Amino acid sequence: MKTHLECIPCFIKQSLEAARMATDDEEIHEKVLKEVMKHLETISFSDSPPELSRDVHKIIKTITKSKDPYKKVKDQSNQKARNLYPRLKKLVDEADDPLLMAVKLAIVGNVIDFGTSNRFNLEDMIDNAVKKKFVDEAYPQFKKTLEQAKTILYLADNSGEIFFDKLLIEKLTKRGKDITYVVKANPIINDVLVEDAKFAGIDKLATIMEGDAGQKISAPGMVLSYASKEFQEKLRSSDMVISKGQGNYESLSDIDREVFFLLMVKCPLVAQDIGTEMAQLVLKVK
Amino acid sequence: MKTHLECIPCFIKQSLEAARMATDDEEIHEKVLKEVMKHLETISFSDSPPELSRDVHKIIKTITKSKDPYKKVKDQSNQKARNLYPRLKKLVDEADDPLLMAVKLAIVGNVIDFGTSNRFNLEDMIDNAVKKKFVDEAYPQFKKTLEQAKTILYLADNSGEIFFDKLLIEKLTKRGKDITYVVKANPIINDVLVEDAKFAGIDKLATIMEGDAGQKISAPGMVLSYASKEFQEKLRSSDMVISKGQGNYESLSDIDREVFFLLMVKCPLVAQDIGTEMAQLVLKVK
Repeated sequence: MKTHLECIPCFIKQSLEAARMATDDEEIHEKVLKEVMKHLETISFSDSPPELSRDVHKIIKTITKSKDPYKKVKDQSNQKARNLYPRLKKLVDEADDPLLMAVKLAIVGNVIDFGTSNRFNLEDMIDNAVKKKFVDEAYPQFKKTLEQAKTILYLADNSGEIFFDKLLIEKLTKRGKDITYVVKANPIINDVLVEDAKFAGIDKLATIMEGDAGQKISAPGMVLSYASKEFQEKLRSSDMVISKGQGNYESLSDIDREVFFLLMVKCPLVAQDIGTEMAQLVLKVK
Repeated sequence: MKTHLECIPCFIKQSLEAARMATDDEEIHEKVLKEVMKHLETISFSDSPPELSRDVHKIIKTITKSKDPYKKVKDQSNQKARNLYPRLKKLVDEADDPLLMAVKLAIVGNVIDFGTSNRFNLEDMIDNAVKKKFVDEAYPQFKKTLEQAKTILYLADNSGEIFFDKLLIEKLTKRGKDITYVVKANPIINDVLVEDAKFAGIDKLATIMEGDAGQKISAPGMVLSYASKEFQEKLRSSDMVISKGQGNYESLSDIDREVFFLLMVKCPLVAQDIGTEMAQLVLKVK
């Protein structure tokens, strides 16, 4: 997905938020905004939002001297989601279609996102997942591909959300699938790192892979030009690909293979690209 | 009121909207955003938002070669409000306290604003004005000052909103007040010009004055350093000053005289400055 002009004010708003997470120094906040604007004057809109976001966050980190401005909110999200996990697991176990409930909740977990301007209430969304009929044409194909798949590549998105991923991954491993869970190599917004995946115990269910291993800066989405050879090989050879979140959708929506995108729509431009509305739980196949 | 860092993404969002109103050429939209960012890198945050907005809109107008990008939406607002006027007048005439209802509706009219990111539904707000108790400590002082005043300086804000102003101005003229209705000298966002005031027939009720007469560029708020000597004299000598909207609040909230600010709170920073919440109808005295 290409970048739109509307992304510009959104990048700047996010830069201010990240700068404030990193430091209380208002002079530094101002410097961050001005340097980010200076950079955004030079960008090409044919790059995807995660590619541009990568450079924006590099500027933020350099000026604030913070390697991980979102560390605190990531830890809070992980703790909060860990506390929710037993309740969520019960919802899955007691559902008429446990796999469907696990898919829906994995999408609901994507509400935990500091990479977008629009925020939603997690509790409301959980209720929503339980009550709302998940009318999506892609679910039968999801089940069919899953049935035939031995290997699954699962692209993670955000901290906290990992406990929602865990519900689905548990369902997949019970079916004997071999899962590779893809995280980022370096802190970027609130995206999942190896340490987060381990905190949620996903390393006991799946092989953890840094999709952009070797890169010194990560993007908030698996941008192919920054991806490792190992990831690219897995992307080709895996029987099934599950991609979480907007960032991965923006990076991979144009690739030439079947991908199941699970995401909460938090941006009007992504909504437009998908052909849906804001705040929808989406399971889209490509 | 000084400018906050949050105003930056808001200025940029507004620039994109204005550029799109002026032309369909996407290259020009991009050029506008980049030039606006270049300018915003140089600003001082001690200036008020309307002062900075003035320069931002100058850039937009220069690049798009449009003297008045909001002309169409201003005309639409005027038409829409003219159609509403008979219904509004009935609401005032039938109210227990017609003056209070005219004040409330004059504030509701301020919902018609293209100068802020947050938009509200006008019909909902009219219902709101009728049903909602207008608990405001400033109303007794408003009535007291009004009772003793012979001359009133009334600072207009937006097109469309003028028909809501007219309801209040009619109440004031019935009490024999001498009213000066202050508009901008040049197009700026959807602010009222002489032609709009005439369209609403306010020239038959009040003396119309361009507050920044002689300036070649107007700001979306009556910034004192750009105001004419005549306006400054009126501001000192008038018995009562009624100021509509956020822009005038941002420009004049720190001046040293009694001013009644009538506005809809459409920005979280103005809400914070006033000590209220978003979407509130505010009558504040200074």
